[in-house]
Amino acid sequence: VRCEVLAVGTELLLGQIVDTNSSWIGEQLALAGIDSVRQVKVGDNQPRIVAALRTALEQADAVIVCGGLGPTQDDITREAIAEVMGVELRRDDAVAEVIAGMFATRGRRMPENNLRQADVPDGATVIEQRLGTAPGLICPVGPGGDKVVYAVPGVPYEMQEMVERAIIPDLQRRSGERSAIRSRVLRTWGESESGLAERLAPRLDALDVAGNPTLAFLASGIEGIKVRITARAATPEEAEALLAAEEAEVRAVLGELVFAVDEETMEASVGRQLVACGLTLAVAESVTGGLVQARIVSVAGASEFFVGGVVAYDSKVKFDLLRVPEGPVVSEAAATAMADGVRTLLGADVGVSTTGVAGPTEQDGEPPGTVWLGLALGDRVEAVQIRLPGDRDRVRQYAAISVLDRLRRVLLETPAG
Amino acid sequence: VRCEVLAVGTELLLGQIVDTNSSWIGEQLALAGIDSVRQVKVGDNQPRIVAALRTALEQADAVIVCGGLGPTQDDITREAIAEVMGVELRRDDAVAEVIAGMFATRGRRMPENNLRQADVPDGATVIEQRLGTAPGLICPVGPGGDKVVYAVPGVPYEMQEMVERAIIPDLQRRSGERSAIRSRVLRTWGESESGLAERLAPRLDALDVAGNPTLAFLASGIEGIKVRITARAATPEEAEALLAAEEAEVRAVLGELVFAVDEETMEASVGRQLVACGLTLAVAESVTGGLVQARIVSVAGASEFFVGGVVAYDSKVKFDLLRVPEGPVVSEAAATAMADGVRTLLGADVGVSTTGVAGPTEQDGEPPGTVWLGLALGDRVEAVQIRLPGDRDRVRQYAAISVLDRLRRVLLETPAG
Repeated sequence: VRCEVLAVGTELLLGQIVDTNSSWIGEQLALAGIDSVRQVKVGDNQPRIVAALRTALEQADAVIVCGGLGPTQDDITREAIAEVMGVELRRDDAVAEVIAGMFATRGRRMPENNLRQADVPDGATVIEQRLGTAPGLICPVGPGGDKVVYAVPGVPYEMQEMVERAIIPDLQRRSGERSAIRSRVLRTWGESESGLAERLAPRLDALDVAGNPTLAFLASGIEGIKVRITARAATPEEAEALLAAEEAEVRAVLGELVFAVDEETMEASVGRQLVACGLTLAVAESVTGGLVQARIVSVAGASEFFVGGVVAYDSKVKFDLLRVPEGPVVSEAAATAMADGVRTLLGADVGVSTTGVAGPTEQDGEPPGTVWLGLALGDRVEAVQIRLPGDRDRVRQYAAISVLDRLRRVLLETPAG
Repeated sequence: VRCEVLAVGTELLLGQIVDTNSSWIGEQLALAGIDSVRQVKVGDNQPRIVAALRTALEQADAVIVCGGLGPTQDDITREAIAEVMGVELRRDDAVAEVIAGMFATRGRRMPENNLRQADVPDGATVIEQRLGTAPGLICPVGPGGDKVVYAVPGVPYEMQEMVERAIIPDLQRRSGERSAIRSRVLRTWGESESGLAERLAPRLDALDVAGNPTLAFLASGIEGIKVRITARAATPEEAEALLAAEEAEVRAVLGELVFAVDEETMEASVGRQLVACGLTLAVAESVTGGLVQARIVSVAGASEFFVGGVVAYDSKVKFDLLRVPEGPVVSEAAATAMADGVRTLLGADVGVSTTGVAGPTEQDGEPPGTVWLGLALGDRVEAVQIRLPGDRDRVRQYAAISVLDRLRRVLLETPAG
């Protein structure tokens, strides 16, 4: 099965919004082993959407259309798909009822336009909308309906939920799979893609012979490298059992490299550990300049474990406020003193710190990319040095996730409270 | 003239990299008044690149191909364009010499492969590479060479420099312009797109009649709204003069709403003002949790004006470290005390602060989106309240640029040092 992605929206062409939906869908297709060779963006223009769908369906078996399902007059994805199918739109009463009900429970008047979202091309199947008002669509096209157009909303979390729940499974069924398929992503930090492949080589060889479950790798920049396990079986229960067994095999090899499962982020994983241990955190940042703390406060419920921190950009702030000894500030001594100083200053149980050289020029005789990560937890006050590639921005971003990963690994050795 | 954008790279389809290049190019085309109706991504596969180019050239007059100009065997954009042109590649000795020279001056051995970057389709013009090794290409295609394929590297800053310097002017020439064209972007914060249009209505009406210069608006999310002035004249000097005169007209209407010109960011603009006034800055963040400081340290030379700051996430940090009076922390009193407290604590001339409710639930009786922005500069210690739309992440992002904008406006009233 080959699947293309079509993103609809004039604002995408004008660069007012970056199209991250197509990238996300591309990643899901790759992880599910579905071939995807082209992605297209068009504006809110029916002839152009229709032309793009027809071009896509010449080569591909399936197209996922993202966006243009809203209630306003320039949301015309439904009309364009109906034109390609050669059918009319009909109002789906069940969908209309759900939409009207959502407005009613919120005590808001429903503009008549909103019922346009209940219009469905004749012959299409509705993907239930669980997070918003526009349902998704599964639309058979072509002779015998052997090809398919999927429509999903452009709102990322609504789109993602539908792609995972309904579209990937439907594509896998079309690719000849009649069995139950389950997958799980193990997120790793601290090893390259080739390094992971090397460690898992015996496992990959064994799976190559058996063919089920499968493992796939996906490099995701400052979010690490993902290892996706996909298992097929006659029943969902059997697939889940295969998945659990394979996860145990992979974890036995990768150990602490795995920091989270599926959508959990590094900062959420660390937060979960801190709460489990009953510990609070303070952060002292120099080279990362606020990025570590910005990641932490993005976690829902961060106030349970995060106290606050200091951005000690000027060396004088390090010396005066954090009691760092005078001397080079890109050093083990400075990193440990910052971590210890910030937990004392803010009354937290744990302190972490970053100090380093973002570049482009060297500092304290150290080249760009040199970063010290400090940590203070109980009697354990220490720092490790890492060397990071890339420009100023990448050095900072990598340093931010690296210090969180460092804390995660130390917390693994700390008994839960 | 109609121009499509083709992004080449398997990593884009797999979602390993988000394609921000196409968005950026789309924005430039829109601002230059060039019609763009479709953007496409394909992998590193010659038949698919060729097919995408041919499909694009059926409808469009021009295609900008981004990526696939590197030195390795999977960089095949040059070959694909030559196939579409029906010509051979020839080695451009001048380009080869430049590439060899770059390796020589860095004292590095040049892999033979790198000379592939000097291969040029017969009949194409080279766009000089000023920031890397791969040159861009201007490739006439079709009967009479009336259509054109542009090739640029996928490295964003190399691509951007070539699009601005060579491709947009070439497209404008092809659209029938024989005159000199100059443009300038005024970046604004604090007014909606429709509000800007309303204020500038008399100016827009006058320009509609004259047709030169022109004004265009582009909403850019948390970077504000851009107003692009484009002027045409017989000579570059006359175009620059028109531009300067129109900029003065627009600035007379928009006044303080304009925070920067062209590529300057809000944080760079604020940094420039602080340096000019000889003032240093400290930041106290609650709701923004480090985002304000992360923006500031992204400015090259931030150490000239930025001392550091405190993320006071827990109320206790506000009370103990910043001397905020006990009471509700989403309040005018807390915001002013935070700004005053952080400048005192870190020994800076100016303090700014954020405290508010990111949501999803209310806090201190205030609904999500309520944010106080505090400022302390000399005897001036004050706070303003704003209400922001959106989810947690957007509230934080908007609050971060808003406090920088607040500081910028106050600094406008401060004499330069």
